[in-house]
Amino acid sequence: MDIIVLRPDASEKDIERIVKKLEGKGLKTTVSKGTERTVIGVIGDTSKITEEEENAVRAMRGVEEVMRILKPYKLASRDFKAQDTIVKVRGKVIGGKKIPVIAGPCAVENKTMMMNIAEKVKAAGASFIRGGAYKPRTSPYSFQGLGEEGLQYLAEASKKTGLPVVTEIMDPRDLETILKYTDIIQIGARNMQNFRLLLEVGMCKKPVLLKRGLSATIQEWLMAAEYIMSKGNQHVILCERGIRTFETATRNTLDLSSVPVLHQKTHLPVIVDPSHGVGKWDLVAPMAKAAVAAGADGLLIEVHTNPEDAMSDGEQSLKPDAFKKLMSELKPIAKAVGREI
Amino acid sequence: MDIIVLRPDASEKDIERIVKKLEGKGLKTTVSKGTERTVIGVIGDTSKITEEEENAVRAMRGVEEVMRILKPYKLASRDFKAQDTIVKVRGKVIGGKKIPVIAGPCAVENKTMMMNIAEKVKAAGASFIRGGAYKPRTSPYSFQGLGEEGLQYLAEASKKTGLPVVTEIMDPRDLETILKYTDIIQIGARNMQNFRLLLEVGMCKKPVLLKRGLSATIQEWLMAAEYIMSKGNQHVILCERGIRTFETATRNTLDLSSVPVLHQKTHLPVIVDPSHGVGKWDLVAPMAKAAVAAGADGLLIEVHTNPEDAMSDGEQSLKPDAFKKLMSELKPIAKAVGREI
Amino acid sequence: MDIIVLRPDASEKDIERIVKKLEGKGLKTTVSKGTERTVIGVIGDTSKITEEEENAVRAMRGVEEVMRILKPYKLASRDFKAQDTIVKVRGKVIGGKKIPVIAGPCAVENKTMMMNIAEKVKAAGASFIRGGAYKPRTSPYSFQGLGEEGLQYLAEASKKTGLPVVTEIMDPRDLETILKYTDIIQIGARNMQNFRLLLEVGMCKKPVLLKRGLSATIQEWLMAAEYIMSKGNQHVILCERGIRTFETATRNTLDLSSVPVLHQKTHLPVIVDPSHGVGKWDLVAPMAKAAVAAGADGLLIEVHTNPEDAMSDGEQSLKPDAFKKLMSELKPIAKAVGREI
Amino acid sequence: MDIIVLRPDASEKDIERIVKKLEGKGLKTTVSKGTERTVIGVIGDTSKITEEEENAVRAMRGVEEVMRILKPYKLASRDFKAQDTIVKVRGKVIGGKKIPVIAGPCAVENKTMMMNIAEKVKAAGASFIRGGAYKPRTSPYSFQGLGEEGLQYLAEASKKTGLPVVTEIMDPRDLETILKYTDIIQIGARNMQNFRLLLEVGMCKKPVLLKRGLSATIQEWLMAAEYIMSKGNQHVILCERGIRTFETATRNTLDLSSVPVLHQKTHLPVIVDPSHGVGKWDLVAPMAKAAVAAGADGLLIEVHTNPEDAMSDGEQSLKPDAFKKLMSELKPIAKAVGREI
Repeated sequence: MDIIVLRPDASEKDIERIVKKLEGKGLKTTVSKGTERTVIGVIGDTSKITEEEENAVRAMRGVEEVMRILKPYKLASRDFKAQDTIVKVRGKVIGGKKIPVIAGPCAVENKTMMMNIAEKVKAAGASFIRGGAYKPRTSPYSFQGLGEEGLQYLAEASKKTGLPVVTEIMDPRDLETILKYTDIIQIGARNMQNFRLLLEVGMCKKPVLLKRGLSATIQEWLMAAEYIMSKGNQHVILCERGIRTFETATRNTLDLSSVPVLHQKTHLPVIVDPSHGVGKWDLVAPMAKAAVAAGADGLLIEVHTNPEDAMSDGEQSLKPDAFKKLMSELKPIAKAVGREI
Repeated sequence: MDIIVLRPDASEKDIERIVKKLEGKGLKTTVSKGTERTVIGVIGDTSKITEEEENAVRAMRGVEEVMRILKPYKLASRDFKAQDTIVKVRGKVIGGKKIPVIAGPCAVENKTMMMNIAEKVKAAGASFIRGGAYKPRTSPYSFQGLGEEGLQYLAEASKKTGLPVVTEIMDPRDLETILKYTDIIQIGARNMQNFRLLLEVGMCKKPVLLKRGLSATIQEWLMAAEYIMSKGNQHVILCERGIRTFETATRNTLDLSSVPVLHQKTHLPVIVDPSHGVGKWDLVAPMAKAAVAAGADGLLIEVHTNPEDAMSDGEQSLKPDAFKKLMSELKPIAKAVGREI
Repeated sequence: MDIIVLRPDASEKDIERIVKKLEGKGLKTTVSKGTERTVIGVIGDTSKITEEEENAVRAMRGVEEVMRILKPYKLASRDFKAQDTIVKVRGKVIGGKKIPVIAGPCAVENKTMMMNIAEKVKAAGASFIRGGAYKPRTSPYSFQGLGEEGLQYLAEASKKTGLPVVTEIMDPRDLETILKYTDIIQIGARNMQNFRLLLEVGMCKKPVLLKRGLSATIQEWLMAAEYIMSKGNQHVILCERGIRTFETATRNTLDLSSVPVLHQKTHLPVIVDPSHGVGKWDLVAPMAKAAVAAGADGLLIEVHTNPEDAMSDGEQSLKPDAFKKLMSELKPIAKAVGREI
Repeated sequence: MDIIVLRPDASEKDIERIVKKLEGKGLKTTVSKGTERTVIGVIGDTSKITEEEENAVRAMRGVEEVMRILKPYKLASRDFKAQDTIVKVRGKVIGGKKIPVIAGPCAVENKTMMMNIAEKVKAAGASFIRGGAYKPRTSPYSFQGLGEEGLQYLAEASKKTGLPVVTEIMDPRDLETILKYTDIIQIGARNMQNFRLLLEVGMCKKPVLLKRGLSATIQEWLMAAEYIMSKGNQHVILCERGIRTFETATRNTLDLSSVPVLHQKTHLPVIVDPSHGVGKWDLVAPMAKAAVAAGADGLLIEVHTNPEDAMSDGEQSLKPDAFKKLMSELKPIAKAVGREI
């Protein structure tokens, strides 16, 4: 159902034209004349009204506002599928009782560091390794990643540790290559509305970790998930990584309330990336704990053996010892909310 | 120290005028000519440079930017006072190992409800009661609070339960009346930059609970605390209550990263109000847990016996049973971060 | 009329309770069961439903969302009063064909500068003089204004030039004093939701210039105007002065689209303050021109004879010569949009 | 030059390590010990310090903040090239005295409508036609554009009217096809940080119209231009189309102050798209006028013969008659700011 609010000066003829248009689309209408406004209720399966049809109604004479009652996403919605989606990857589970941790460097820099970090995060209890081979950098003069060479190091680290790999895609032309090496495909914040890329990963069989856009609302984020799911790939993992606010003391503002909100609105698992969320290593531990307490289904944490020489985001990476300490501190919090880590 | 960056077209004469002006204020300068920009470093006690002097330098010909290195707040700063400030009120402590909970209705509606809620929150373990007698409402046609009558009911509830009172002030003309009934004076989000009100409560001896403004940065918030402290009242409690973002699924976005950030920047205690932060009762519990995990020194939670008939903010209030359940769920999380509740 | 959208799991009993509650308030309801959601339409004079009643409905079991169709402001609305409000002050008009310019320094610093600036802006064609005697400063250590002494200088400048005075109030306790000297009372951005101050100026007979809050929506701004008007003072002038955005190249982001939007929604005159909007003197002229082209009913421009020594906001003040040049450049633009200056 | 501010507890050893690291990169340093903070100035060609090196310094022990004095963009900067860039396309000029108008529908829907609109906008004085063949839509269920068929209709309309074409690219895989039909390649707001797409169009010889991202700062926007220019394509046209703010009365908030700010910071031409900026057809005319008054070098305006049946963004399109009227109303404003249209 949709609600169309008319301007106070809408004429009888305006009302007729609107009603006629809607009924031409097979919808029924009810016109309620209030003391201050006339309102047209649209009855029938309004989920079939496309965005452009809705906007066309907005353009009609006499219309003040069109309010949609149904959410524009369907496959991602808890209404459509009540049961939690559980993503299983090479023996690891996202969306279950256990809270998996994805850890590793921001960018894959060389083979030695990748192997080294992978072993350390595994020893500390991580379930997945991560690392970027294609890096979205705000400057064209910054390190853009090692490309396929970086993917190979990730694969070797995975082979050695047995941990599955998460890595980011930026360009549909890299998909074939990336699929050879990764277990989960990451869509970064800046590509959350790169619709062609979303459609492309929607045609894959591997799970997609979809980060929230820099200033995206939860509904826009779910619409991005819907893009992927509309092409057949139902294994989408949502990742809160902070939104842009006026605050400058942190890199972004980690919106932990998105976790319980998403658990109401969608069946998809929700993980949290406190590293990008705050951007400073000494704030990562408290926010990782808060994320678990808020109900996160997983964590993504940047770890680097030598942050002072990192080629990307060193200032937000934990050293392996700090990561190990954090992993043990998370256990009682997970337990307190009925989970384990 | 301050840094003045000059425009590429700044002339020698421009530089001279700027240097002369600064030296006239008893400051020393160093001029560094780089390949692309000339930079003037200002040496000496630049904390004495007022905002207006800084802006006046910005207005000088040849100046591109003025960067201040010192923070504009002093008394509120961790640099100034390294040790945590602990606020003690009638046997209750804010800023210590124990995490106190302030609970009660948004607005005091009548005597019976106030007594009733006070007893219930006390039984569940709250340390303070709260309730608004003067309400900042966005509509002039909404319930504006009972005024002094409401304060009297709060005082009676306090007498009966032994719990100290927190209530909000909106107008300096009410201060004398409010001081008769309250233990902690609350400054609401909309008054965070009501500078005359800040100066007024700065002259009181009772602690002040200062909420973060709707779109305030942490620095602006600390400057508001500085206003209060500059008049002699050092007992300021900061209260994170969410900031405005583009997200509409929640009333505000609770910025829990402000908790560890503030613990670095200031010695003042930091509490969290998840009720206003999210605006929906079923999101309060996960966010209260997250706040404790993030290191909050206290919580402020709205409780109402009958939210469906509340005169203000019913949709974000917990019923006493839900509050009691939450209090017990918070215990293991507090313990996990080395605190108790 | 209001629309209540129910959750998919709302029971018949939930619906009954909601309907009963609304009918208990003398309203009629229509229940429409769609394929995916049930919707309750509320018929009757819903303008009498207060904010708290609406929120109480939100708190009821089974309710997903409450959508209000009527705007919460009434007196400020174009629906309520179709004809433009024209404010007349000592022979000057705001809201007519002629676009008046209010000019002067940010703060009154001393008598000589105030007289000097007043004469210069008059000569250049300004219709009002302005200057702050009580200054809202983010730092307690900044110049806070001369108080009544500053008001006296304003009054003398007004006497000499014949131009009416605009000055800001920050504290209800200063009202009586300010009324002795000013022609229009200004409410600054930080006090747009200082509700007690709004009520107080609402009881005056002098016009009120109401600045938009730092991150206020147009609706919140109109609700602030409604506060003033609800007490009887219908002479409110809205002043766009920029809102907070992520952009740091300007002090604020001047939202010129608020001008035509407000002309649709309200009968009140709308003026623009490009000086605070951009915060840099060399951006003031293009934005003043743009404001006139967008349909502004007036301008507020900061002018200072010696910005490099200004005690407040020197970096955004025009020198008298630049102001004079701007005044002449505005003429053909005003003419192009059917106005004069 | 860069400024590194140290924490108050930074040790001599910390300072040594930082200095050593910087000097290892061939930079010189000056250490200034103030009363409250020690500051390290970095001298030499700091433009060679990459983002990752800067972040690595941020990760070093003892560092509180790193302030960069040089802007991170170079080719796009007015410092690098003082003279205005003028883009010439098939006899049309962007960046000169004349203000060109790009007009057409949001999406190309069919041949008839495209031909029809092209002729009408040409008759009214437009210099370019536009229309989307690949549409970035927030819903996967919305009309996604006609693809190459749409491009063909654009080309036919161009052939008939003689007006050059502007159309959007969303995917690097479409580039070859698009280049066959378009004169200017548009990068939409959602792709402003699709870095791989930016690099790709940077290797073309055709001009690029780069829209500002939904919540991008001016600096981020210029960095996106830098991406394109770093690959050799210097013909970038910046297009302000509104940024996301809290305001809901308009689709976005058109930031007209970006026009004079960009004219200071860059040599690239700046045009304005009021149609997306406000999202409502009846607000387009005042904002188009304001854009010209603010100094815009061009306008992009959506025109549709039948907005009520538009397949995209009908509510913000002008009908040909309204467009024609606007074109004539813009003339005196252009003249008032020394331009013509």
